[in-house]
Amino acid sequence: MDRQQLFEQIKKKESYLCVGLDSDLEKIPAHLLKEPDPLFAFNRQIIDATIDFSIAYKPNLAFYEAQGSKGIESLQKTLDYIPPDVFTIADAKRGDIGNTSSMYAKAFFEEMNFDAITLSPYMGFDSVAPYLEYSSKWVIILALTSNKGSNDFQLEHADGRLVYEMVIEKSKTWASPDQMMFVVGATQANALKNIRVSNPDHFFLIPGVGAQGGSLEEVSKNGFNKQCGLIVNSSRGIIYFSNDADFAINAGLQARKLQEEMAQYLQSYL
Amino acid sequence: MDRQQLFEQIKKKESYLCVGLDSDLEKIPAHLLKEPDPLFAFNRQIIDATIDFSIAYKPNLAFYEAQGSKGIESLQKTLDYIPPDVFTIADAKRGDIGNTSSMYAKAFFEEMNFDAITLSPYMGFDSVAPYLEYSSKWVIILALTSNKGSNDFQLEHADGRLVYEMVIEKSKTWASPDQMMFVVGATQANALKNIRVSNPDHFFLIPGVGAQGGSLEEVSKNGFNKQCGLIVNSSRGIIYFSNDADFAINAGLQARKLQEEMAQYLQSYL
Repeated sequence: MDRQQLFEQIKKKESYLCVGLDSDLEKIPAHLLKEPDPLFAFNRQIIDATIDFSIAYKPNLAFYEAQGSKGIESLQKTLDYIPPDVFTIADAKRGDIGNTSSMYAKAFFEEMNFDAITLSPYMGFDSVAPYLEYSSKWVIILALTSNKGSNDFQLEHADGRLVYEMVIEKSKTWASPDQMMFVVGATQANALKNIRVSNPDHFFLIPGVGAQGGSLEEVSKNGFNKQCGLIVNSSRGIIYFSNDADFAINAGLQARKLQEEMAQYLQSYL
Repeated sequence: MDRQQLFEQIKKKESYLCVGLDSDLEKIPAHLLKEPDPLFAFNRQIIDATIDFSIAYKPNLAFYEAQGSKGIESLQKTLDYIPPDVFTIADAKRGDIGNTSSMYAKAFFEEMNFDAITLSPYMGFDSVAPYLEYSSKWVIILALTSNKGSNDFQLEHADGRLVYEMVIEKSKTWASPDQMMFVVGATQANALKNIRVSNPDHFFLIPGVGAQGGSLEEVSKNGFNKQCGLIVNSSRGIIYFSNDADFAINAGLQARKLQEEMAQYLQSYL
């Protein structure tokens, strides 16, 4: 899916919501544990309930890997279930030497057919390059994350700018905004404003709204560009709002609530 | 396995060799593709041939994930096959927010029972903390990697020192040398000398000998501490030395060659 197609989806659904599928056997409703594939049964119902309000899904790999080979099967079934006009992000945060990155690129872009993958920048260009060979796919580089630990290295000084600024500055020379996005945490709304000024064309993936405390309105005001330019993720606030029999209805309601808020911001600030 | 037990293994085998199991269906001998589980068949023969000369095995997760759920099964069987007195490293290079890291820790330390995992430091303390709750397990933090891209960020200046120096300096306050190691590429032998001076007690995991061009003698001279303090990895130079029917014999010969060199350095420099 290219940048313009992504924007078309955003306009059509009046939404820039991504639903994070952090699906965990210990947190999904107990009645699903009787299903042959509980993680997939959960994801399928979450997707059915939220797809009218969201333009993207982001399974976090950790939650599937924690279940071994069965979890990877659940993930593959989930990917196959998501319609092709919906953007899919492998939240994998990989970063490794070239020949290893090639294997990951193959796993996520060919085997599983994700549209995008999150990557950690620490190992530099050759750890990202193999993913860029897939010209219709996206890399999403960790820049300024939503967690407390973002203070430890990302906000340290590096030759007159901050480490995360250096990461954006260098990595954006590796690919165009048609193939690269950045992760900027919703808890970093002030920094987001400056990052947008320096990077008018890039899409940003924004985690940290909801459970982690970021404000959707602040993020939207500070982060929009002409094509919206934001994909805002919510995981726990949607998928675990309820863990009773009505979990999917509640997930749908929460997604709709966010979508309605987003529709308003798209009208006001875009 | 604790630090002293690791040193005992090193003394017993006169080796600090780790065999990297970057096992790839496209590179293993063709006759193995007829086996019901070719990756495991390959790994089992590599392990049998090299176990007398190596103290650790390091499967690189990418190579198993590229095969989907079947690959994860091959990995689990491989882990179950490696005897408990041999150190096992999940080369995963993970780094994510706390609740996600907890899931990865569970996957790698509980489900798969690895002794150690490699981690990317970019997201800071809370991305590492969940792994440290497993007091008998190890985290191995990427500091200065062996690839060309290590120049992009790791060797940039950050307030009077280099980024990788800042990473070591901060992250070593999070855990003792009984639970934390650092990755230092063999291609960085000069830096290794300084890193050893500042960090006399830590074990270092050293990739980049062999295919990537690092010198084992330089690494050993510059990196030893009183307990050896080095785990030197070789992947392609051992497991793909031959891809004919005699691949395992050749892998064993290459591992023995490195082990004999190591025995010599242990005598000369330790």
